[in-house]
Amino acid sequence: MKLETLGRHILIEFYNCNEETLASPELIEKYMNKAAKIANATIVNSVFHHFNPYGVSGAVIISESHLAIHTWPEYGYAAVDVFTCGDKINPWTAFDFLEGVFGADRSESMEIPRGMVEKIRKFHPEELGKVTFKPEEDQETINY
Amino acid sequence: MKLETLGRHILIEFYNCNEETLASPELIEKYMNKAAKIANATIVNSVFHHFNPYGVSGAVIISESHLAIHTWPEYGYAAVDVFTCGDKINPWTAFDFLEGVFGADRSESMEIPRGMVEKIRKFHPEELGKVTFKPEEDQETINY
Repeated sequence: MKLETLGRHILIEFYNCNEETLASPELIEKYMNKAAKIANATIVNSVFHHFNPYGVSGAVIISESHLAIHTWPEYGYAAVDVFTCGDKINPWTAFDFLEGVFGADRSESMEIPRGMVEKIRKFHPEELGKVTFKPEEDQETINY
Repeated sequence: MKLETLGRHILIEFYNCNEETLASPELIEKYMNKAAKIANATIVNSVFHHFNPYGVSGAVIISESHLAIHTWPEYGYAAVDVFTCGDKINPWTAFDFLEGVFGADRSESMEIPRGMVEKIRKFHPEELGKVTFKPEEDQETINY
C-alpha cells in the first residue's frame, strides 16, 4: 500500500546529548545545514538565534520544506523537526547524522504525513489534476 | 492531571484556502508574523521564500520556539506548524487567526508535547534541578 502525500515530517527528541555542542550556535547552524545537505535537500535560506545564557533555535528553509531545532544544553535535550517533500530526499539520513554529531544517548521520533493527497482532493471544490510536490528543477527561486 | 513539558507543537493542515493569499509571499510573511504576535510570542527573526511559479515557505523564530509554513496555492493547501514554549503564549490563538485570514474551509490539527520533562530527567545521567523553559525576561538575545 502506498500513501500519497506531499510531505513527511519527522519530529525528533534527542536526549542526553553533548551539552557543549547544543550550546554552540556555530556548531548547531553548521550541523543543521549539513544535515539538510546529507538528506539531499536544497538549502534556500536559514536563520539561527542564540539565547543567553542557554540554547539555540533555528530553521533551515529547503526547497523541499524545512528543518528546525531548539536546544536546551543545560538538560542535554534538543527538539528537531525534519519536514521534507518529494522522493529525492530522505529525512532519516538527517536524523542519523544529527543523532551522531549531537552524541544523543537516546532518541525518539515519530513521522507524520503532511498534505495527504486524498484529503486535499476531498476538501477541494473542483476536480484537481495531478497533485504533486513540485520538483526542484521546475522552480526558479526568488529570495527576498 | 498535568503534563510537564518544555513545549507544545501544533501541526495544522489548512484545506481549500484562498489561493491568492497562499500565493502571496508578502501576505504569508505578514500573517505568520501577526500570528506570532497574537499568540503573545516574541519574534526574534524570520525567513520567507517564494517559489516560482507557486508556493511560499517560511519560518518565524520566536523566543518561545517557532512557527513554520509551506503553501501549495494551486491546491488551496497549507501546512503550518506552531511550536511554543512556556505558559505566557497560546498557540491556538495563532491557529484561529491563520484559519480566518487564509479562508480555510476545513482545518485539521494535532498537538504533540515536545520535551517531556519526565523523559528528560529519566535519560539524563545526573539529577536535574528544576526543568523549565527559560522565560523571555531572563534572556538577553544575540542575533548573528
